[in-house]
Amino acid sequence: MSTYIPPLRDIRFTMEEVVGLEAISALPGFEEATSEMADSILTEAGHIAEGVLSPLNRAGDEVGAVQENGVVRTVPGWKDAWNTLVDGGWNGLPFPAEYGGMGLPNLFNTAVHEMWQAANMAFTLCPMLTQGAVNAISLYGSDAQKEFYLPRMVSGQWTGTMNLTEPQAGSDLSAVRSKAVPDGDKFRLSGQKIFITYGDHDMAENIVHLVLARLPDAPPGVKGISLFVVPKILPGGIANDVKCVSLEHKLGIHGSPTAVMSFGDHEGAWGELIGQPHRGLEYMFAMMNHARLAVGLQGLAIAERAYQQAVSYARDRVQGKPAGWTASGSAGIVHHPDVRRLLMTMKCQIEAMRGIHYTAAAASDIVHHDSDPERRRQAGLRVEFLTPIAKGWCTEVGQAIASMGVQVHGGMGYIEETGAAQHLRDARITTIYEGTTAIQGNDLVNRKILRDKGAFAGQLLTEIADLAGDLSASADPALRAMGGRLAAAAAAAARAVSWLVKDGAEHPALVAASAVPMLELMGVVVGGQQVALAARVAKAAMETGKDHDGFYGAKLATARFYAEHILPHAEALELAVTSGAAVVMGMDEALL
Amino acid sequence: MSTYIPPLRDIRFTMEEVVGLEAISALPGFEEATSEMADSILTEAGHIAEGVLSPLNRAGDEVGAVQENGVVRTVPGWKDAWNTLVDGGWNGLPFPAEYGGMGLPNLFNTAVHEMWQAANMAFTLCPMLTQGAVNAISLYGSDAQKEFYLPRMVSGQWTGTMNLTEPQAGSDLSAVRSKAVPDGDKFRLSGQKIFITYGDHDMAENIVHLVLARLPDAPPGVKGISLFVVPKILPGGIANDVKCVSLEHKLGIHGSPTAVMSFGDHEGAWGELIGQPHRGLEYMFAMMNHARLAVGLQGLAIAERAYQQAVSYARDRVQGKPAGWTASGSAGIVHHPDVRRLLMTMKCQIEAMRGIHYTAAAASDIVHHDSDPERRRQAGLRVEFLTPIAKGWCTEVGQAIASMGVQVHGGMGYIEETGAAQHLRDARITTIYEGTTAIQGNDLVNRKILRDKGAFAGQLLTEIADLAGDLSASADPALRAMGGRLAAAAAAAARAVSWLVKDGAEHPALVAASAVPMLELMGVVVGGQQVALAARVAKAAMETGKDHDGFYGAKLATARFYAEHILPHAEALELAVTSGAAVVMGMDEALL
Repeated sequence: MSTYIPPLRDIRFTMEEVVGLEAISALPGFEEATSEMADSILTEAGHIAEGVLSPLNRAGDEVGAVQENGVVRTVPGWKDAWNTLVDGGWNGLPFPAEYGGMGLPNLFNTAVHEMWQAANMAFTLCPMLTQGAVNAISLYGSDAQKEFYLPRMVSGQWTGTMNLTEPQAGSDLSAVRSKAVPDGDKFRLSGQKIFITYGDHDMAENIVHLVLARLPDAPPGVKGISLFVVPKILPGGIANDVKCVSLEHKLGIHGSPTAVMSFGDHEGAWGELIGQPHRGLEYMFAMMNHARLAVGLQGLAIAERAYQQAVSYARDRVQGKPAGWTASGSAGIVHHPDVRRLLMTMKCQIEAMRGIHYTAAAASDIVHHDSDPERRRQAGLRVEFLTPIAKGWCTEVGQAIASMGVQVHGGMGYIEETGAAQHLRDARITTIYEGTTAIQGNDLVNRKILRDKGAFAGQLLTEIADLAGDLSASADPALRAMGGRLAAAAAAAARAVSWLVKDGAEHPALVAASAVPMLELMGVVVGGQQVALAARVAKAAMETGKDHDGFYGAKLATARFYAEHILPHAEALELAVTSGAAVVMGMDEALL
Repeated sequence: MSTYIPPLRDIRFTMEEVVGLEAISALPGFEEATSEMADSILTEAGHIAEGVLSPLNRAGDEVGAVQENGVVRTVPGWKDAWNTLVDGGWNGLPFPAEYGGMGLPNLFNTAVHEMWQAANMAFTLCPMLTQGAVNAISLYGSDAQKEFYLPRMVSGQWTGTMNLTEPQAGSDLSAVRSKAVPDGDKFRLSGQKIFITYGDHDMAENIVHLVLARLPDAPPGVKGISLFVVPKILPGGIANDVKCVSLEHKLGIHGSPTAVMSFGDHEGAWGELIGQPHRGLEYMFAMMNHARLAVGLQGLAIAERAYQQAVSYARDRVQGKPAGWTASGSAGIVHHPDVRRLLMTMKCQIEAMRGIHYTAAAASDIVHHDSDPERRRQAGLRVEFLTPIAKGWCTEVGQAIASMGVQVHGGMGYIEETGAAQHLRDARITTIYEGTTAIQGNDLVNRKILRDKGAFAGQLLTEIADLAGDLSASADPALRAMGGRLAAAAAAAARAVSWLVKDGAEHPALVAASAVPMLELMGVVVGGQQVALAARVAKAAMETGKDHDGFYGAKLATARFYAEHILPHAEALELAVTSGAAVVMGMDEALL
C-alpha cells in the first residue's frame, strides 16, 4: 500500500534556505508570513495530505467519479475531505482577508499544494481550479461579481471550473463556437464544452463555471471571445440551464470527474459577462498562467510521490547480491547500482523541479507585493520565463519519474494493486492539459525569448554562468563538477538562444520546430541552477558545522549526480535546436 | 478506432535491401526462402495481423482474460484466432519439417511476429512463448521428449510457458525454491510460480509448462536449479496436479492471462527432467535469449502501432494555423512543426529498431545454417551483442514512442476509447519482463563487453566508424550529416568501452552503475548504424532512378532527423558512463 510522507524538511530547505523566505516575509502585507507561520501551515497541511487526502487516493482510482441518474458522485469520503479544507479555510490561503482568505504568500500555497497534489492529484484538481477561477474574478470581475462570488469561492462553499475546450477547439481556442446572446443585462449561453475538470460533482453547494463564448457581434478568431461566469445554481436555488452530459473514461485521475458540459439545451444558460466584451481569452490567460504553474507543480508532486514509493519498495525488496556488495547474502535492491541510479535520477530532478516552482512562486509574491517597481518588473519577467518551463519541463520529467517508479518495482510495478502504475497513469495527463508541451515550448520561444530578442534569457543565463563560475572555484569536488557542467550547459543554452534570435526569428516554422528542444534545454539548465544553488547553500551549512545528520551532504551528492547525468544532455538539445529544427519538416507529409 | 496496416514495404525494404535476404536464401536449407516466398508469407501473415488479430486488440484490453469457477477464459474470438494460426501451420514457421514446421528463416519469423505483436501484443505472447518452449525442448530435450512434445507444440495444438519467477525469486533466480522429488523415472513437483504468461487459458488442448525447480540433492544457488517439463494434462487425459490460483490485475496486456500457478497441492505435479540435473538455468537461458529478442520485437511492434495511429490522427485532426503555414485557414496538426517533430522522432527510431531486430534475426539464421564455422562464430557474436540492445533499448524506446503517440492525440489521447493509451499501458511491461533494462545492461557490460575485453564491441564500432566515414564523403547533405554525427557517436561509444575495460573492470559496482547508460549509448549508435545503412541503400536506389514515389528519399530524411536529434545524445551517455558511474552510489542509502 502506497503511503505519502510530506517531505517537510526538503520543502522547508528549498523555501527558507534556497529561495529565501526572509525576503518574502519582509514584503509589505506578508508580515505574518514568518518561518514560524510556515512551520505551522506546512505541518498542518502535511497532516491533511498524509491523513486525509493520501488514504483516499487509491479509492479514487479504483472507484472513480461516476454519473448516475444524471448526478455526478465523487468517491466516498471525498466530500468529507473537501469539507476539511473548507472548515480549515484552506482554499483561501493565498487570497486577501477581505474575501475571507488568509492573505499568505503564494510560496506557502505552492508548498501546500505540492503536498496535496502528491497525496491525491485527482482530488486536488478541484481546489486548484477553484483558486484559478478566484484569480480570474478577482482580476477582471466587477465589484458586484467579486462581492457575490469571491467569499463563497474563497471559503470553498462553491467551486470553480474553466470551460474552454470544445470538440473542434482544443489547443486552438480561436475555433470556439459557444454563443452568448444578451438578455437584459445578462446573457443566455449555449454550446458544448468538453474535458471540463470537476464540471459537475457533489462536494460543494454550487459550481461557478467560467465559460468562453462568442457574442452575436463578435469578430471571428481569438479577438471575438468573451468570458462569462455561469453558476450551476442560480440565486434563489434555481437550476441553471447547464448540464453534465457524460463523464470521460480516462487513463488516470479517475477520481476527478472530467465532464462533457452542455449549456443552454433549453432557454439558454444564464450568465454574466466578465470584464469587457471580446477580451475573454486575455482574461482566461491570467487564469491559465496560474493553472499552468499549478499543473507543473503536479509534475513535481507526482514525482515525489512515485519516488517515495520506489525508495520504500527498494529498501524492502531483497533480491540478489548487488554488484560490489561485500557483505554476505542478498540485500535490498536499493543497494543494486542501477536501482540507485534510477532513484538518484528521480531525486535530483525532484529537487530541481521544487527549486523552479518555489522560485517562481516567490517571484510572483514579489510581483504582487514589492514596493519597488523595478524589483516587481524583474520578478515578473522571471515568473513569465519560468512558467512554460515549470509547466512543460516539470510535467515531462514528472511523467518520466513516475515511469521510473514503476521500473524500480519490477514485475510488481505492473500490477495495479501496487499503486506505482496509478502514478504513471495520473501523471500522463499533465503534459497535455492546460497547454501541451508543444504549447509551452512555443510560449517560451515566441513570447519569452524572441519578444525581447533574448534579453531576459541572456540575463538569466549570465546569472547561471556566474553561479557556475563561483562553484568551479570551490575546493569541493561535487561543487567543482557541478560548476563545470553547469557552465557548459548554460553556454549551450546561450548558443541556442543566440541561434533562435539571429537565424530562427524570421522563420516561424523553424521557431516552432525548435520549441520543445529549447524548452527541454532550458529546463535542464534552470533545473541545474536550482540544484547548484542548493548545493552551495548546503556546503556553507556544512562548513559551519550544521550538518548533523547528513542532510546537507546529500544535497552535494544529488548535485553531483545531476551534473554528471542530466546536464550533459544540454549540448545534444542545443544541436536539436540549432541544426535539428531545420530537418523537422524535411519529409513530405504523405510519406510519414 | 485504431487500425493496423502491416508496413509491408518498410519490412521488405529492411529485410531485402538493408539486411539482405539473398545471403539468407543462399544458406543451406533455406533454398525455398526466396523473395517470392517472403512476399507470399508476409502478405498472408499481414492479412492475419490486419484482419484477425488487430480487430481483437481492443476487446482484449476491455474484456481481458478472466478466471471463472477455476477456469481461465480468454477474450471472445481469441480461440478462433489461435485456430487460424494452427490451421495455417504458422506456429511452425521457423521449425524443421520433421516436427511439422515450415523450416523458414528466423528472419521471416521475426517479420511475421513484428506484425502480430503490433496487431495484438497480448494475444501474440502465446505463440511467442510457445516458440520459446519449442526451442528449449529442441535443444535440450531427450529424443522421446522431442518426439512427444514437439509435433504438438509446433502445430499449436499445445502451447508452452516459462515458469521461472517465484515471489522471492524475480531477477534473482538463484532464490528459486520449487521442489522436484524423484518418483521412478519421473518427478513430483511442488511450489508456487508467479507472473506466468498464458499459465492457463482455453485456446489449446494442453499447456506445456517448463518449470525451474530444485532436486533434493541440489546445491544452493543457481547451480542447483533443474528444468522440468510439466504438462497441464497428462497422457490419457488426466489432469496434472497444476493449478492456476489467480490472474493478476495489470496495467496493460489485459487479454494475456498472467497466472499465479500452484504446482503439487496434492500428490505433486508429474514432470520429466529436461537434460541434465542442475543445469536448468543454462537451458532456460537458451529459451530466454529467444524470449528477450521477442520482447524487444514487441518494443518495435508497439512503436509502429502507436506511430500509425498518431499519423492517422494527426492527418485528420484540424487545429489552428501551423507556424510557417502559407495557405489560408487551419490545417491538420500533422503540419504543426512540433507534431511533426514527434512523428519523426517515432519514425526514425522505429526504422532503427527494425534494422537491429532483422539484423539479429538474419545473424541467428547464419549461426544455425551457414557452412562456414568462422561466419557462424562471427554471426553468433553479433547476435549475442545485439540481444541486450534489441531487448533493453528497443523496449525503452518503444515505451517512449507509445507515450509520444498519446501526446500527438492531445486530450483525446487520455481518453481510453481512443486506444492510444492502451499502447502505452501494454508497452509498459516490455522493459520489465524477460529481464529488466538493468538486467540487459548488465548482460551487455559484463558478458558482451568485458568478457572479451571489448573485442567485439571494438570491431562493431570500427565497422560503424567505417560506414560513417563512407557517408561523410558523400555529396548528399543528409548522408554527410549522418556520417559526421555517426562518427562522433561511435567515437563516444568507443571511449566508453575503453573506460569500461580499463577503469571499470576491476570495480563491479562501477560496471553495474554504467550498465544502462552504456546500453542506451550502444542502442543509439547501433540504431544509427541501421538508419545510416538504410540511407546509403536508399541513395543508391535514387541514383539509379528507382525512387518513383519518394519512398527512398524519405529514408534520407529519417536518417538526417536521427542524426540531428538522436545521435547527439551519445556524448551525454558517454559521460554518464565515464564520469557518471562513480557518483551513482555517492549518497548514503539512508538519505534517499
